[in-house]
Amino acid sequence: MAKRYVYNFGGKRADGSAKKKDILGGKGANLAEMTNLGVPVPPGFTISSELCLDYIRRGRLPKSVLAEVKKAIRRLERLTGRRFGDPENPLLVSVRSGARVSMPGMMDTILNLGLNDRSVKGLIAKTGDKRFALDCYRRLIQMYCDVVLGIPRSKFEAIIDARKKEKGVKFDIDLSGDDWEEIIRRFRRIGQGFPQDPEEQLMGAIGAVFKSWNTPRAIEYRRIYDIPEDWGTAVNVQTMVFGNTGPKSATGVVFTRDPATGEKKIYGEFLPNAQGEDVVAGIRTPQKIDDLKRILPDAYKELVKILKKLERHYRDVQDVEFTIEEGKLWILQTRVGKRTARAAIKIAVDMAKEGLITKKEAVLRITPQDIDQLLHPMIDPSQKRTPIASGLPASPGAAVGAIVFEAEDAIKLGRSRPVILVRDETSADDVGGMKVAQGFLTARGGMTSHAAVVARGMGKPCIVGCDAIKIDYKKRVFSVDGRVFHEGDVITIDGTEGKVFEGRLKLIEPRMTKEAQTLLKWADRFRRLKVRTNADTGPDAKVAREFGAEGIGLCRTEHMFFAKDRIQAMREMIIAKDEKGRKRALEKLLPMQKEDFKAIFRVMDGLPVTIRTLDPPLHEFLPREREGIEALAREMGIKSDELELIVNSLAEANPMLGHRGCRLGITYPEITEMQARAIIEAACEVTKEGVKVLPEIMIPVVAELNEFKNQKEIVVRIAEETMKRYGVRIRYLVGTMIEIPRAAITADQIATEAEFFSYGTNDLTQTGFGFSRDDIAKFLPYYLERKILPHDPFQSLDIPGIGFLVELGVKRGRKTRRNLKIGICGEHGGDPRSIEFCHRIGLDYVSCSPYRVPIARLAAAHAALRSRQRR
Amino acid sequence: MAKRYVYNFGGKRADGSAKKKDILGGKGANLAEMTNLGVPVPPGFTISSELCLDYIRRGRLPKSVLAEVKKAIRRLERLTGRRFGDPENPLLVSVRSGARVSMPGMMDTILNLGLNDRSVKGLIAKTGDKRFALDCYRRLIQMYCDVVLGIPRSKFEAIIDARKKEKGVKFDIDLSGDDWEEIIRRFRRIGQGFPQDPEEQLMGAIGAVFKSWNTPRAIEYRRIYDIPEDWGTAVNVQTMVFGNTGPKSATGVVFTRDPATGEKKIYGEFLPNAQGEDVVAGIRTPQKIDDLKRILPDAYKELVKILKKLERHYRDVQDVEFTIEEGKLWILQTRVGKRTARAAIKIAVDMAKEGLITKKEAVLRITPQDIDQLLHPMIDPSQKRTPIASGLPASPGAAVGAIVFEAEDAIKLGRSRPVILVRDETSADDVGGMKVAQGFLTARGGMTSHAAVVARGMGKPCIVGCDAIKIDYKKRVFSVDGRVFHEGDVITIDGTEGKVFEGRLKLIEPRMTKEAQTLLKWADRFRRLKVRTNADTGPDAKVAREFGAEGIGLCRTEHMFFAKDRIQAMREMIIAKDEKGRKRALEKLLPMQKEDFKAIFRVMDGLPVTIRTLDPPLHEFLPREREGIEALAREMGIKSDELELIVNSLAEANPMLGHRGCRLGITYPEITEMQARAIIEAACEVTKEGVKVLPEIMIPVVAELNEFKNQKEIVVRIAEETMKRYGVRIRYLVGTMIEIPRAAITADQIATEAEFFSYGTNDLTQTGFGFSRDDIAKFLPYYLERKILPHDPFQSLDIPGIGFLVELGVKRGRKTRRNLKIGICGEHGGDPRSIEFCHRIGLDYVSCSPYRVPIARLAAAHAALRSRQRR
Repeated sequence: MAKRYVYNFGGKRADGSAKKKDILGGKGANLAEMTNLGVPVPPGFTISSELCLDYIRRGRLPKSVLAEVKKAIRRLERLTGRRFGDPENPLLVSVRSGARVSMPGMMDTILNLGLNDRSVKGLIAKTGDKRFALDCYRRLIQMYCDVVLGIPRSKFEAIIDARKKEKGVKFDIDLSGDDWEEIIRRFRRIGQGFPQDPEEQLMGAIGAVFKSWNTPRAIEYRRIYDIPEDWGTAVNVQTMVFGNTGPKSATGVVFTRDPATGEKKIYGEFLPNAQGEDVVAGIRTPQKIDDLKRILPDAYKELVKILKKLERHYRDVQDVEFTIEEGKLWILQTRVGKRTARAAIKIAVDMAKEGLITKKEAVLRITPQDIDQLLHPMIDPSQKRTPIASGLPASPGAAVGAIVFEAEDAIKLGRSRPVILVRDETSADDVGGMKVAQGFLTARGGMTSHAAVVARGMGKPCIVGCDAIKIDYKKRVFSVDGRVFHEGDVITIDGTEGKVFEGRLKLIEPRMTKEAQTLLKWADRFRRLKVRTNADTGPDAKVAREFGAEGIGLCRTEHMFFAKDRIQAMREMIIAKDEKGRKRALEKLLPMQKEDFKAIFRVMDGLPVTIRTLDPPLHEFLPREREGIEALAREMGIKSDELELIVNSLAEANPMLGHRGCRLGITYPEITEMQARAIIEAACEVTKEGVKVLPEIMIPVVAELNEFKNQKEIVVRIAEETMKRYGVRIRYLVGTMIEIPRAAITADQIATEAEFFSYGTNDLTQTGFGFSRDDIAKFLPYYLERKILPHDPFQSLDIPGIGFLVELGVKRGRKTRRNLKIGICGEHGGDPRSIEFCHRIGLDYVSCSPYRVPIARLAAAHAALRSRQRR
Repeated sequence: MAKRYVYNFGGKRADGSAKKKDILGGKGANLAEMTNLGVPVPPGFTISSELCLDYIRRGRLPKSVLAEVKKAIRRLERLTGRRFGDPENPLLVSVRSGARVSMPGMMDTILNLGLNDRSVKGLIAKTGDKRFALDCYRRLIQMYCDVVLGIPRSKFEAIIDARKKEKGVKFDIDLSGDDWEEIIRRFRRIGQGFPQDPEEQLMGAIGAVFKSWNTPRAIEYRRIYDIPEDWGTAVNVQTMVFGNTGPKSATGVVFTRDPATGEKKIYGEFLPNAQGEDVVAGIRTPQKIDDLKRILPDAYKELVKILKKLERHYRDVQDVEFTIEEGKLWILQTRVGKRTARAAIKIAVDMAKEGLITKKEAVLRITPQDIDQLLHPMIDPSQKRTPIASGLPASPGAAVGAIVFEAEDAIKLGRSRPVILVRDETSADDVGGMKVAQGFLTARGGMTSHAAVVARGMGKPCIVGCDAIKIDYKKRVFSVDGRVFHEGDVITIDGTEGKVFEGRLKLIEPRMTKEAQTLLKWADRFRRLKVRTNADTGPDAKVAREFGAEGIGLCRTEHMFFAKDRIQAMREMIIAKDEKGRKRALEKLLPMQKEDFKAIFRVMDGLPVTIRTLDPPLHEFLPREREGIEALAREMGIKSDELELIVNSLAEANPMLGHRGCRLGITYPEITEMQARAIIEAACEVTKEGVKVLPEIMIPVVAELNEFKNQKEIVVRIAEETMKRYGVRIRYLVGTMIEIPRAAITADQIATEAEFFSYGTNDLTQTGFGFSRDDIAKFLPYYLERKILPHDPFQSLDIPGIGFLVELGVKRGRKTRRNLKIGICGEHGGDPRSIEFCHRIGLDYVSCSPYRVPIARLAAAHAALRSRQRR
């Protein structure tokens, strides 16, 4: 027997199946699969993609294939009792492309092939709708002339426009059947090549589909998605069915479960005596699917049976298109149904409980983005609005509020109404106002700028780097494209998309559903990575623990110093002229820090808490502008000139690379001493309360072993003294941030002393790329647009570059200390792609902001499951 | 025969030789070696260091060794005709430690051992100098009691002080022989343990020497210099000789060549009828060695013969101590003579020409520091002064001048007198004034701060990070430790040492000697590394070429923009609102840049010239302060508010990591276009003049291949267009700086497009360490003091950290492009230790500031010769 190239489907048997996707393409294989399931699909056949490249090269099909195609057409005529080109009961078919994977770059569908001047009369008779039939015919002519014969569409459009002018109407819909008849007559002049012979039409269409594999759009699409050139496309030829042939006909779309809520019930719409296009066009209002039960009970019953079968077979919610022609149900297409995040989660959990899928599959079906969506308010998608400006989506969720430009105003105004803080950028001074605001919008800064980091920490929506808005603080307005927005004007921001809207949009409130909690519990069983949180206060830690955090990976002690009552003591410390003065001020800070740590330890009872010693340069705690300096000088009782000298002497050209982190702790050992004392005293005191504490003290900005040794010596000395004083023994670790390239490079040396590593990948990205996160807004958008970088490296870890340093540090660190505990506490700890990398290179945990903990739990499970699949 | 532990020397035969340094120590081996050469050394013996650890453990010598020592003493008595403890003609010896390498941490010498109450009379008789003899005796008692018996020195000092009070005198020298007699009497009360038996004295001293191996100072010294604990020290016992026994006695020090000039003639001093100490004490004025010829012609003749022999044997200038006792010449010590840089070079070249050493040896004997010293004025070392402050030695040499605080004042005042520019830090605005000043002194900044880099480029002395000086610009003064220095006051700065002096010190002017040029030519034959220079102008390039530069490794185009007539156009470009405006301004810059390039190409005829496209962020070209902004706004004819907005919008939190380098070239392609055009037009035009040009266009701050591709595309397009227009074909390369960690990591990718690499190790150190060079003055001094870092990583490349990235980039780059040309153009290109590393990892060239080119040539030769030795 010769090799076969044409595969029939429909009519209760199929030559192919889902397994033959390689040669039948996705669509062809699916039609065969449905046939095999006993689902009534309009019969047709698929021409193998193996012929595609050969056709492109030779411009014709082998003779044996032509014979196969003709045979397949005869089969369709037999099955349907219609004939190709018949003026009374014509066989009409659609011709579609269909590659192994869906490729939007390829040819559109040609419908109603088989219509000609004679057979169009048969369609008129069958549907009783002259206008419809002639519209179908003229579309076939236009489409065919365009894709097969290469005659420009515009010429046909000109004829239609001319007719509309003659009739004084505006839309196609206003043209009558007679008008279309006239238009088709005029089409003949330019579309002379349009063949009246249906078989000739068919051969032309098949050739056009094969050739569409090489359109520039398709080639570009394959290049981007890395699809092999030699796959080719298959061609699907399928009998047309009509839902507009009378009262026993209908057409509709139905989901096997509710795609909005996930509820297990059939959900969909249909239109009686109508064609599929009518549903899309929205001219008639469709009826709920339940009504079909009453109108066409047999067809409904069969539909329900088929839906059940399809869902069970495909093991997922199906989105099914159907047509009922003269009481006979045809399934035109089934595909996986799109759904909301909430529905996706409910469906996955329900299906796993029903035994339809495994728990592993349920976990893998939910994306981290689904979980993210669930945790933030969203703009109700039913409202279509154009944004006034766009920026970087720094922290997801949506918020509505009145514009304010100063943190103080946020506090004042925020008492009476919701506010959005709009600034060029935010700083530590603004945190009070940020706590009150619903969300933040900044004109500068990148994904890890101050505003972005604080927003994600607080779980509030935030847009940064929104270049288009120009703020005038004095006038209390911002302008965008010439329009002016005043303080107090209401705006809506969408931090998920990075879009700013005028006025108040309706929001959908978030909810962590019961099913989501179930799903995450299942996910927990599959993951190897632990998930910790970055939290600086007891309440933050509490939120994170409720979200499933298994410890704190980063507690930033300096955030504690920015509070109103503390910054005073901090500033005294900085301004002090000698060690004695500094120690006196530090003594005031000690009890406050201790209380903070105690609150955190209590919440995290039994779980490890990583506390980082002072990180930012000291000038961050002082005012910069003259007015601020004068006010502070009055407060402190010193001369403002003197204070200005101090502020100036602390100023740095590049604070990111300046006198900070362990460099401070080394030059001012009394700061590290105070912090170590506060941590260990807190640990001793809560231990006496019965709390189980596991403090991990972390030294930041280490670039060299000797720096770490210097700081560890201080910590250990103070810890031993303190424990002795309390008579309590605590297990504590002293480790380091790896956030400087040289630390990763010399990790083997650092690990001789460090008991754990935590990657600060924000700073490692800054130094490794030479990118200041506060300044990249000037060029990063351009880089992303021109694809100079595939993504923002502060959002998703740059694996070839920064990832190399991370992996090098892990290898070298563990060469020295085999069981070195290693985590990541940069912003990437909450990014799924980065989490997968962390899993792969063997980290012990990731740490992220509280609101990303559920996402990280799921992403960690995915990473583990996928790496098992690969093995 | 039993193993021997005591090795005799002197008396015309020695048991050891220079080869036995391991057990005899350096001093013992040298004394044996001189004996073997027939040089008259006072006879003595060395006790092997093999006994040292055993002695420390057991507290005594083996009996067999005691017997050997006694035998050796008997030999000395025979040779000298004196007897241990003899009241008429006593044998006196010295006892010294002597390990395999010189260890300043160990015991001082004990002299005149063998003196006691009886034999001291013999010494009085022999020298006829009661005071001298008794002084020798009391010193022996004090020293012995201290190091052998552990009696505090202070007790003896108290007795001497008491005597001085009784006599109403102030200095030891004012005490008479009778006074010393009385003092020795009083010493007996506390120094009862001092043995009268010379053999007992000797055994005590030998034990003390062995034990001195384990003093805390010696242990610390070994730890620092990594000297093994188990080496131990040997003990040298040697007959004392006396140069003060009458008119036929003398003592002196002599060099085989002039240590100041290198001239080949005996150079030295002596004192007739005197002891070595008298020369050191400076009480009597020594005579020139030539006079000895007249006074003691036989001894002089023998001395000259011996000096010749010693220099030939040791193949280097010798610094020889001698004593003539009763007409008999004794050589007490010979060692390699210390010399000035100028002398060192002349001596090496002369000796090679004489055939005494090879040219290779001559090259290896000169250190890069010698060459450096030659190229800069120095403070005449005869003036002893205390510095008023110290900072980082940023650029070598010394300068004297009046203090000025502003660049403009430097220009004004500099017309009439030499000035030193003193500032907190310098910036591009100050360059005009810096050109006029003799040197710079800044209170802030590190070794690669603006002042430091400019100073090295200009070859002027500079001190940076001199924290101690507090500048008050308003009052035009600086204060240091409470003392105030006014504008116009004269200071002297020593940039080689980093020291600031009050007033005018005498300087020695530099000179590149004929011999130095010869030596460097020899060095050139041995090196593999090429040496290029960093030069931005024709005159700089000319200086460098005269110093032997083989091309330009870094021409910073932006330095050309800071000139008064150009910054205007540059500012117009920055302030322009759109591409058109920017292009208009760039058109003005193009002819200026072109002329600069032409001047450089002409100077570098036949040699490669690497030109870097715009590197610094644009805000560096704009004023920062309000007054400057207002002035510029007036000049530009725009509103100062508007200009302030532009300045603010360009401001960056961390300019080092900001919108600069290729990031500018990518967002403003017209800048790269203009620069490429200026380079290629210049190249075409000088080619037509007959100049051979080899331009290498270098893209800065690349972190990712796509950035480089973007810029290369522009350069190649413009180059091709331009060459076509001129009808000239030029060989040019397009390459990149590797100055960002990610560039080194992804060097394999970047090398697919880059035709050469040049390491910008300044910036690579900044990013790799996370150190801002402008800000490190706050902690680096502390780091160096506490040995947290072994050296300033901006001065000498950090090999374990930054070196790893450099080597990684070389390996990965050459994996892709086997013959990739790779150089270094960071400040490290002029640092010998870093040059050795560059040689080792296979770089093609180093590039440094013009004044360091000779140093780099020598260092490159050393690297090649040493690596051959190792192989």
